[in-house]
Amino acid sequence: MSKESYSIQEAILYSHKMAQLSKAIWKQIEKDWQNWVKPFELNLNEHHILWICYHLNGASISEISQFGIMHVSTAFNFSKKLEERELLTFSKREEDKRNTYVELTDAGKKLFEETMEAHASGTDKNTVMQASLPLKDLYGRFPEFQDLEAIVKNIYGDDYLEILDRSIASIREEY
Amino acid sequence: MSKESYSIQEAILYSHKMAQLSKAIWKQIEKDWQNWVKPFELNLNEHHILWICYHLNGASISEISQFGIMHVSTAFNFSKKLEERELLTFSKREEDKRNTYVELTDAGKKLFEETMEAHASGTDKNTVMQASLPLKDLYGRFPEFQDLEAIVKNIYGDDYLEILDRSIASIREEY
Repeated sequence: MSKESYSIQEAILYSHKMAQLSKAIWKQIEKDWQNWVKPFELNLNEHHILWICYHLNGASISEISQFGIMHVSTAFNFSKKLEERELLTFSKREEDKRNTYVELTDAGKKLFEETMEAHASGTDKNTVMQASLPLKDLYGRFPEFQDLEAIVKNIYGDDYLEILDRSIASIREEY
Repeated sequence: MSKESYSIQEAILYSHKMAQLSKAIWKQIEKDWQNWVKPFELNLNEHHILWICYHLNGASISEISQFGIMHVSTAFNFSKKLEERELLTFSKREEDKRNTYVELTDAGKKLFEETMEAHASGTDKNTVMQASLPLKDLYGRFPEFQDLEAIVKNIYGDDYLEILDRSIASIREEY
């Protein structure tokens, strides 16, 4: 892609706007997420790990790191804390001994399901979703953000959206 | 907005997707931003404060907190650090003595302009912008994300988008 395909002004305006919008959205999601999982004595990273393992039916530390967008050491350390609480177990797989895999215990699955019940009965506290309802009323469905998906795909690779699709398929089956 | 206007499945799918996409985008912007301003011995919060004060031609601590989406104490503490480096000054305004206002010094303006020159000559390191170029080639312009803007407006109020418009107008004049 040649530099000449955009002006400096366009580039600065676009990145300024994207920085402001994505920071605004993410910080609100982070706040809501923290409030949601706090009663279960989980932080956002721990809950994200449970989420990923639950919907992917077990995951490697590197998958958690990639899909959870957290450093490998963050993924490992918080998984370790969840293991100490007996919410998950570590294992190696015969066909891939270099990677550490993580699977939820029955207690881990139960706790995760409880958090999801709290989520389902507390959608009024989900600020971003509530703030999207006028768009849903207008369009008949929640916005799709395909442009955002395309950008994320270009940054994180096809893998990332494939994992998102797998977890979305799993949610469709569950609820 | 009544609860009946969406199903639990729709709500969970939407908030899961938004969490994954906005975390992915924001974490990459954060990383690029840190790399960009590090050579100037600034962190992301400090640079965001300089950015806001530069484009709004001075700002109150509460405006910085609101538009920068940082806690008031974060806005104040990092502004204090910038004051110690003589990059900005604190003042009170006659018509509004309760708020602390922040204005860039000449050295602050100069440093901010240097960071913007580095940005302009380093757009190849701006991952989100680069990842958006295929969309720009397709549409003839960078994506607008009006849906995202509408959601941010519903969360943070008209004020937030007004400030975004003011800073965008200021960028249009400068570059």
